Amino acid sequence: MSKTFVLKPVGHVRGGRSEIIDDNWGASRAWIELDPTLFKPDALAGLEDFSHLEVIFLFDRVADEKIEYGARRPRGRPYWPLVGIFAQRGKNRPNRLGLCSCRVLRIEGLAVEVEGLDAVDGTPVLDLKPVMTGFLPRGEIREPAWAREIMEGYW
Amino acid sequence: MSKTFVLKPVGHVRGGRSEIIDDNWGASRAWIELDPTLFKPDALAGLEDFSHLEVIFLFDRVADEKIEYGARRPRGRPYWPLVGIFAQRGKNRPNRLGLCSCRVLRIEGLAVEVEGLDAVDGTPVLDLKPVMTGFLPRGEIREPAWAREIMEGYW
Repeated sequence: MSKTFVLKPVGHVRGGRSEIIDDNWGASRAWIELDPTLFKPDALAGLEDFSHLEVIFLFDRVADEKIEYGARRPRGRPYWPLVGIFAQRGKNRPNRLGLCSCRVLRIEGLAVEVEGLDAVDGTPVLDLKPVMTGFLPRGEIREPAWAREIMEGYW
Repeated sequence: MSKTFVLKPVGHVRGGRSEIIDDNWGASRAWIELDPTLFKPDALAGLEDFSHLEVIFLFDRVADEKIEYGARRPRGRPYWPLVGIFAQRGKNRPNRLGLCSCRVLRIEGLAVEVEGLDAVDGTPVLDLKPVMTGFLPRGEIREPAWAREIMEGYW
């Protein structure tokens, strides 16, 4: 039996979209507000020197019974293959963790305004990490055709 | 008071390094083994079509009292600036989440062999996501000088 871990949001998404939809996230702007009981503005010191942020968040509106542990067709589309939940990025996944690279627009106190974050208003945020070029995937990237097709209208 | 969330590892890192050190992770090979009480091999179906995987894991050996909530110099180096914990990727961070892009070498049943995962043997893994080019940071990436310097010997 595997040990469990208790995580506490470091903040929440405020503003941006309230509807959970699949596409057109690119121009979406929202704020990430850190929890004022845990942090002071120094937690974000120097973030203005980075153009992009990686946000780890929780798809907290996914019900337990929706979580996929095996394989499914991405977005249920019959023309895409059966793909394991760990070979796709759909939200109905174990631990319901979301991960998105977005653009940093500005920082005000405990809040960061971002563009292109695919998380809705109120989403719990678990971590923020600056995008460093040294942490990007190393070497040539290979992916199947469906992974390119699914992204066509995403941003 | 913010709600907390209970997360259960989907698997663990097996093999690779056992020492927690800062650099030279690039050639490190390890397996990620999914929990057999939760998953069957179909959870990894189609992962062989991707060259890279993003792994979200827990720095579970970081003690509570080591967690930084404000700013510190990356790796404690006096010649780097004071940087907020959310503007750096150090392990002593709230929620202790690690995130790494690594190369998929092969898949055997419930296990994935990876190269370049900066997590030690036994590390709890919370999620695996395939690297899709459409999810990489969009637009030009800007970062401060220390963020390039810190990566010089990392891989």
